Amino acid sequence: MRNRAIVIACFYVGSAIANPSASLGVGPLSSWNDGNSKQSIITFVERVTNVNSPDFVPPAERIAVFDNDGTLWSEQPLYFQLVFAIDRVKALAPQHPEWKTREPFKSVLAGDVKAAFAGGERAIMELLMASHAGNTTEEFAESVRNWIAKVRHPTSNRPYTEMVYQPMLELLAYLRANGFKTFIVSGGGIEFMRVFAEEVYGVPPEQVIGSSIKTKYEVRDGKPVLARLPELNFIDDKTGKPVGINQHIGRMPIFAAGNSDGDFQMLEWTTSGEGARFGLLVHHDDADREWAYDRDSHIGKLDRGLDEGPKRGWTVVSMKTDWKTIFKHEAGANTE
Amino acid sequence: MRNRAIVIACFYVGSAIANPSASLGVGPLSSWNDGNSKQSIITFVERVTNVNSPDFVPPAERIAVFDNDGTLWSEQPLYFQLVFAIDRVKALAPQHPEWKTREPFKSVLAGDVKAAFAGGERAIMELLMASHAGNTTEEFAESVRNWIAKVRHPTSNRPYTEMVYQPMLELLAYLRANGFKTFIVSGGGIEFMRVFAEEVYGVPPEQVIGSSIKTKYEVRDGKPVLARLPELNFIDDKTGKPVGINQHIGRMPIFAAGNSDGDFQMLEWTTSGEGARFGLLVHHDDADREWAYDRDSHIGKLDRGLDEGPKRGWTVVSMKTDWKTIFKHEAGANTE
Repeated sequence: MRNRAIVIACFYVGSAIANPSASLGVGPLSSWNDGNSKQSIITFVERVTNVNSPDFVPPAERIAVFDNDGTLWSEQPLYFQLVFAIDRVKALAPQHPEWKTREPFKSVLAGDVKAAFAGGERAIMELLMASHAGNTTEEFAESVRNWIAKVRHPTSNRPYTEMVYQPMLELLAYLRANGFKTFIVSGGGIEFMRVFAEEVYGVPPEQVIGSSIKTKYEVRDGKPVLARLPELNFIDDKTGKPVGINQHIGRMPIFAAGNSDGDFQMLEWTTSGEGARFGLLVHHDDADREWAYDRDSHIGKLDRGLDEGPKRGWTVVSMKTDWKTIFKHEAGANTE
Repeated sequence: MRNRAIVIACFYVGSAIANPSASLGVGPLSSWNDGNSKQSIITFVERVTNVNSPDFVPPAERIAVFDNDGTLWSEQPLYFQLVFAIDRVKALAPQHPEWKTREPFKSVLAGDVKAAFAGGERAIMELLMASHAGNTTEEFAESVRNWIAKVRHPTSNRPYTEMVYQPMLELLAYLRANGFKTFIVSGGGIEFMRVFAEEVYGVPPEQVIGSSIKTKYEVRDGKPVLARLPELNFIDDKTGKPVGINQHIGRMPIFAAGNSDGDFQMLEWTTSGEGARFGLLVHHDDADREWAYDRDSHIGKLDRGLDEGPKRGWTVVSMKTDWKTIFKHEAGANTE
């Protein structure tokens, strides 16, 4: 009996630690307005965690996947990783005199981002390879760490790591407190996100899935390194997302959150499984507090998802009406 | 104070649950003979888990990686996955009349494995693709599950999943009880191992890394599937192991265990990091209880590792002298 009491106490302390807001009398999703979106999340979690529910899912199978750009942090006016690529090309320019006369580098160095991207996918790929390859994994991580620490978002003047959505941080924490393992599954670079995902989202490197370039193991002067090669390895977007999830996790998630048509197949696959499933789309409809864009946007285009999502039972979250606060720093200010 | 007491009780119960043998007065590595190998493991774990040690490693960074074939289970007289490939080709033969006259299938169907493998790497690859591709991930997992359940090892007449090393199961459990996250990093197929790794080793699918073929996301009659393509995706062997670890885990392990020169780079990379590191090589030197092979073996060749391992501070485990029991089923018999 004593052991049993200790075990129960242990669970109690465990969940209080996992969800510190509980002790303050604040609900687990306190930055979410009461409404259908918040309620549908809570109902789903209760269904899959209640051992007496026909929809009960054992903890090991409670896999939740989250897109990053536009789902956990902003993606306007330009994907943050592209800003990093541009800044990095500028920093590396002295070592590459040939860039002065070669596109897309010439335009980047002249500060004309629009002209640089006029070269389309090929131009973007050239910028990514020039800024992301040619170093070791350790050197690359260090360059991202330095950039993240000092660069500010052009309109908010905040660090990029503060452009994260408070309601989504609460959702990640709520799922983890209920035995879910949370993963990031993003078109963004896997090694780029891993630099900050643990500190910012509480997601450790081994639970980050993303696009990647090839690496090669080499021993340089007796020291093993992984050299980053200018060659695509995997694009974790659209139909690539279920492929990447299967490769890394090896189980079908039961919860998937995204914000664009690049997440469509991830939600489609996740919600096609048996039992209770949850698909969530963040709809950027708040021009005052964030940005408003969907069907016609180059960044984070959401068209098919808006049409088919509701018919498929997915929850379309309105940033404007469902979220009390948008950014983490605003939530901080509110409670101070 | 009450909360503090509960938290301490919680840790106590936690470690008792994680390591049930503790309550029986049996040490954590009870199938290991006392000696340098066992002692070096325990000393390492105490160094990295003691908060007052200069070598303390936070739990999140306690990553341990294990090869599978020859390290966690046997690999003689033939890699078990190759036996699966052969059996699968036989099962699929009625749908492939052309195999009757085409090598390496012709020899496989005639029961002449030696002749089938005379075609070298290309023949093996053809067998693997024919037996592993052309289905969906779910269908493939089902075929492995069925095979594992009914096929017996040719010399022991035991299920393949009982050909696992009891001392290594204890090592996995000991590391996990001390806050390590244990991963499998094998040249074997990632989707093959995931079918049994959780039940047999306590390693969930998302902590299994292996070789893979490409998959493609498709919606067939409204149902999403991942189709397995006859195209190599990744070979998780030799220099591929550090690459695979970085891709999946994104951190350098602090503990690596293998048994062949295919694991050399994994151990080299792991033990090149700063702080306390552990490299372990299982040496197959017990012809009576298992098999004896090393430098001249086609399967699990261990040559460079035997020469360089000790100089690099790696622990070479002798199955003959370091292990009280070899197989899990023997350990079961001992305690009954």
